[in-house]
Amino acid sequence: MKKFEEKTTHSKQLFKGKVISLKVEDVILPNGKEGKREIINHPGAVAIIAITDEGKIVLVEQYRKALERSIIEIPAGKLEPGEEPAVTARRELEEETGYGCHKLTYLQSFSTSPGFADEIIHLFVAENLYKIEEKAELDEDEFVELLEVTIEEAEEMVKDQRIYDAKTAFAVLWMRLSQK
Amino acid sequence: MKKFEEKTTHSKQLFKGKVISLKVEDVILPNGKEGKREIINHPGAVAIIAITDEGKIVLVEQYRKALERSIIEIPAGKLEPGEEPAVTARRELEEETGYGCHKLTYLQSFSTSPGFADEIIHLFVAENLYKIEEKAELDEDEFVELLEVTIEEAEEMVKDQRIYDAKTAFAVLWMRLSQK
Repeated sequence: MKKFEEKTTHSKQLFKGKVISLKVEDVILPNGKEGKREIINHPGAVAIIAITDEGKIVLVEQYRKALERSIIEIPAGKLEPGEEPAVTARRELEEETGYGCHKLTYLQSFSTSPGFADEIIHLFVAENLYKIEEKAELDEDEFVELLEVTIEEAEEMVKDQRIYDAKTAFAVLWMRLSQK
Repeated sequence: MKKFEEKTTHSKQLFKGKVISLKVEDVILPNGKEGKREIINHPGAVAIIAITDEGKIVLVEQYRKALERSIIEIPAGKLEPGEEPAVTARRELEEETGYGCHKLTYLQSFSTSPGFADEIIHLFVAENLYKIEEKAELDEDEFVELLEVTIEEAEEMVKDQRIYDAKTAFAVLWMRLSQK
């Protein structure tokens, strides 16, 4: 038995959308009492630390309806069913930035909101970038603007919260540490 | 108008739970077309980088039903309605670790899953820790185990994915950078 495991006695899906679904589960807690868990299922995503030949990191600004504001992030996108994360990573990089890459390295994965969602982000580093001639099309509901900044600038943007996104903040500090 | 703003034409709440609620919104995209957004509302949370007098970081291991596994995180918890994040931070630190702190510093905030959720985590650094005599009680559905590791060990745990949580991974790299 896993540590503090919670056994499911009943699970009901209440919503199935285009991106997420929602279920409520009745569980037996480690002390034998009953509890309820509200859980969002998400297909998982990739995010890409793309580094230009000038050593700059490629960022995208986009409107996030959940936050009702636009924020600055590293390129990222959802996995299609059955898709290898590295395939998603190359596609999202092309769609969002117009860059292809000759070198793509898997870095690591992490949960973003373990308290209520199963979303996992797989993080990649893309290097040896090249501009693709015919830029791949964005999803029809996606609008992004590109920025390229030095790692030092990006670190400042984390500190003054112009970067307001956990995966991007992690990515920037990771790059910064790898320089030291 | 904000960059790439999406105007809401209709919003419907489909679920209101103990922790999260779900709404689906019809929006007008920047190109004038119609779109749909699935959005999770969350009350927001705090997370605490607690550093012992020996320079170790305090971590908690707990089962996360959404992931069906236990993971290692920095102490964290949801905001109560109208609660100041610093108050939540002191309470969650006490409840989850048995530590009070003489020094609590706000570090920064970030979104965890901007693609579908409005959750914001407010990050604090807790120093000058002391063991509280009567440990505050955890929430009735919370079970955690304490770990204290050096920042170098924690960095290794990020790299080999024993730490599998975005906020904790960020926190560890932030501490590591502040040592350099």
